[in-house]
Amino acid sequence: MTLKGWTLPQSPTGRSSLLPPPPWHYSGEIISADFTADPDQVAELLPPGMIPMGDGSGSFVFADWCSAADRDPRIRDDPAMGQYREAYCVLYGLFDDRKASRIPYIWVDSELSLVRGHVQGFPKKLGDIFMTRPVELGRGGVRKAVGSRFAAHVSALGRRLVTLGVTLEATVEKFYPPSVARPPLHTRLFPSVEGDEPSVYEFQRARIANFEIGTVFTGPATLEFGPSEYNEIDALGPVSVHKGYVHSMAFSVTGGSVQPVVPCP
Amino acid sequence: MTLKGWTLPQSPTGRSSLLPPPPWHYSGEIISADFTADPDQVAELLPPGMIPMGDGSGSFVFADWCSAADRDPRIRDDPAMGQYREAYCVLYGLFDDRKASRIPYIWVDSELSLVRGHVQGFPKKLGDIFMTRPVELGRGGVRKAVGSRFAAHVSALGRRLVTLGVTLEATVEKFYPPSVARPPLHTRLFPSVEGDEPSVYEFQRARIANFEIGTVFTGPATLEFGPSEYNEIDALGPVSVHKGYVHSMAFSVTGGSVQPVVPCP
Amino acid sequence: MTLKGWTLPQSPTGRSSLLPPPPWHYSGEIISADFTADPDQVAELLPPGMIPMGDGSGSFVFADWCSAADRDPRIRDDPAMGQYREAYCVLYGLFDDRKASRIPYIWVDSELSLVRGHVQGFPKKLGDIFMTRPVELGRGGVRKAVGSRFAAHVSALGRRLVTLGVTLEATVEKFYPPSVARPPLHTRLFPSVEGDEPSVYEFQRARIANFEIGTVFTGPATLEFGPSEYNEIDALGPVSVHKGYVHSMAFSVTGGSVQPVVPCP
Amino acid sequence: MTLKGWTLPQSPTGRSSLLPPPPWHYSGEIISADFTADPDQVAELLPPGMIPMGDGSGSFVFADWCSAADRDPRIRDDPAMGQYREAYCVLYGLFDDRKASRIPYIWVDSELSLVRGHVQGFPKKLGDIFMTRPVELGRGGVRKAVGSRFAAHVSALGRRLVTLGVTLEATVEKFYPPSVARPPLHTRLFPSVEGDEPSVYEFQRARIANFEIGTVFTGPATLEFGPSEYNEIDALGPVSVHKGYVHSMAFSVTGGSVQPVVPCP
Repeated sequence: MTLKGWTLPQSPTGRSSLLPPPPWHYSGEIISADFTADPDQVAELLPPGMIPMGDGSGSFVFADWCSAADRDPRIRDDPAMGQYREAYCVLYGLFDDRKASRIPYIWVDSELSLVRGHVQGFPKKLGDIFMTRPVELGRGGVRKAVGSRFAAHVSALGRRLVTLGVTLEATVEKFYPPSVARPPLHTRLFPSVEGDEPSVYEFQRARIANFEIGTVFTGPATLEFGPSEYNEIDALGPVSVHKGYVHSMAFSVTGGSVQPVVPCP
Repeated sequence: MTLKGWTLPQSPTGRSSLLPPPPWHYSGEIISADFTADPDQVAELLPPGMIPMGDGSGSFVFADWCSAADRDPRIRDDPAMGQYREAYCVLYGLFDDRKASRIPYIWVDSELSLVRGHVQGFPKKLGDIFMTRPVELGRGGVRKAVGSRFAAHVSALGRRLVTLGVTLEATVEKFYPPSVARPPLHTRLFPSVEGDEPSVYEFQRARIANFEIGTVFTGPATLEFGPSEYNEIDALGPVSVHKGYVHSMAFSVTGGSVQPVVPCP
Repeated sequence: MTLKGWTLPQSPTGRSSLLPPPPWHYSGEIISADFTADPDQVAELLPPGMIPMGDGSGSFVFADWCSAADRDPRIRDDPAMGQYREAYCVLYGLFDDRKASRIPYIWVDSELSLVRGHVQGFPKKLGDIFMTRPVELGRGGVRKAVGSRFAAHVSALGRRLVTLGVTLEATVEKFYPPSVARPPLHTRLFPSVEGDEPSVYEFQRARIANFEIGTVFTGPATLEFGPSEYNEIDALGPVSVHKGYVHSMAFSVTGGSVQPVVPCP
Repeated sequence: MTLKGWTLPQSPTGRSSLLPPPPWHYSGEIISADFTADPDQVAELLPPGMIPMGDGSGSFVFADWCSAADRDPRIRDDPAMGQYREAYCVLYGLFDDRKASRIPYIWVDSELSLVRGHVQGFPKKLGDIFMTRPVELGRGGVRKAVGSRFAAHVSALGRRLVTLGVTLEATVEKFYPPSVARPPLHTRLFPSVEGDEPSVYEFQRARIANFEIGTVFTGPATLEFGPSEYNEIDALGPVSVHKGYVHSMAFSVTGGSVQPVVPCP
């Protein structure tokens, strides 16, 4: 008898597993903004080997996702499984002489996404995330159109961590906001229970396919970071806030590649 | 000093109140289906004076709402306030010689909606509600288009109460599904703490304005009701399931009118 | 056919109702502290006819309840129903020439308690409430004993509203902390949908029976109120914080008596 | 600059980490029952190398925990961190010629516990867990005493998975219920994103210290398992239900030891 399942819990059928392996597909609605932080604070959050841009540049992104997986149709078919929201910070630098990004902090509102994130090296925590959802008819909400104001916020453990607003002023086609344009470098970390050295501690970069982006609405943004006993996003300020973006986005993750983090902590 | 607030809590500013008075505006995405139940079970759920159609007809509706209120801009502007989902049963009959509908059971996932519902006579309880949200790009979800399958379900206190699916086969314009076409008759009930007679026990019908409906996608539906210690939707079967619908909808509630329930229970 | 149920939803059996009528029984664990606020801020929160003490005195109370109802055994027997936590502010004054208390703000983490509170005139909102639970064995927590520190906090809509700590220094028997000693005056408020005058707007005082209090642990306390878009507890400061209390408490509510609020707002 | 943290997210201070390393301390209140399942179903859930007892014996355990960690005082001091509930199935067999237990399925209601569990090889999922909490005074609940009935249940994704009841009939001292008496064998599984072989796939056994158990209340039990799209506990029946137990328990985890799972799946 073999126990099956890409993750725990394993069972005879495999259908209890929290998650199937890639390919995973993502379709989402994004509300984001660019900011400048103290460059020293940014540098401190980058992993060994990643060189900061030096300008303190960063972005904060809210995403309302639908996701699917080739090997488990339940994820797309059951709205309780594939749908979730996430909120994450993106910092910028160079790695292996190429432009790269780093996600030091990220919150999600789903168990599936939390666990899938940890496997990839996203440092996901649970949070309560709310985002303006545009409407098609009537006066109950705002349209995805120039003139509207979109808002988003995330809280965790009863502390408001990030509050973001964007006023839609213009549209641009075939444009990639900074948070989208540079591939993220993640750190997969699985602790050991026997000693100090982690069992897994390695950089991970995803293999992305089928990337699509819709019309990008841009405009002035507001962005605030708040304090918490358990989260440190407020160390990034922000010092100044730049453009905000609202757009659709989709891609697939077909797998990833890893390399050692040197030196190990 | 006067305490202000349309509902509790009242405060010097009024800004702690759970809710402002109407007008309230609603913009939503609907997934629904028509069913037939045992006509006796339907008759038992209608209030005094409402005459059942006798055919056991009913509908079950899931709605993903954005809402707004003229007197409190926070509701539209903060996505944590105005957005919520609800799931409700609609039964049909005659009242005052006119076609009417009745909502015997309804679940929502927001405090604001729960309290606003009780004021109007919606018998709202809290529940966990999930609905297919269509996507614009990519393979993470389904399109709002012929060929897609939409799903929705509601659970309360750890029991799955209703599971609904619709396969989109055709579109129709300027069409009102039954659950939309007949005005609901609600019962406002506020108990007394002094005796058996309720303090408020009256029929309520909303004044609706600005009604709009988008393209209606229709197709075959599946619908299941489940048992629970605290909910009785499963008494309605359903005996058979008919068409399903996916559409946008919007309207405003500008107030309501009441009349006594005779006899009082 | 009669629809049954002390509250909505009414059904043929009555077992869908959110709540049965009193008697209701309560057994709880309390963590509380006394504070002083700006007397003007306290005065502004008292209802018409209630005379402030003038000293700005108040208390903040966290309670971890088990509750039961004579007419619905499900509430005691199902831990998902009768158990909940609440967090509330108590202010002091005179009403009808007698000492009285007022609860301007209160948060709970259960639907049943929210609705039961509104019927009685408690201005309940939903919140996330955490309280130190003492342990019997081991090092995973603290004992209910001199030397321990207890903590409690409440958040709503992602904002930390109140954080309280008490260091247990002494015990006292047959002692009633201020928050317990004075009977609260509530305002039952049920809005009208037809006009500006509420349908119900009256003072309510509960009939209490079977009151019991256990050993009271006392000691120095810390108390902080935080800001929020939707809550105004931070207007009370506090200016200074006094003693804290940890104790068990139990009582029954057998009904209530009401009188008009004059003038109506 | 070094990033610190035993788990993700790592930060300059280390205080964003989801979890510190052991030692971890646990103090809990237990409600559990023994059952018999189809021996074939039990055998299918044991890992390679673990020999089933052949009698289909198992237990289901609910625990209300307070936890602490030597290297992070926030976990004990903040009731939002260290307190959580969990619900788990225990099966029995032989491993390395000694009696062992296996936890094929477990649900928890806290992020910290979910992640701490995965590091140790507990196959934790999130769930909604409710347990009778005994009271000290009054009629709002039941006493931890002979004659009381305790109840517990767990739901996940809107499906009731397990419902347990115990009527307290007798007490016994210095007694270890089966679920406590045999050390569990866990499987640490951390998937690879590069290929089919997991990055970590190994047996783990915890080093336990400071074990304490209080008076054990025993009596007849009821136990039901329910179906779900995502969980398979109902495959275990149960065929018959035996004694139930209510007791306090405490222990520390000071680390663990691992060995390969052979063969790898």
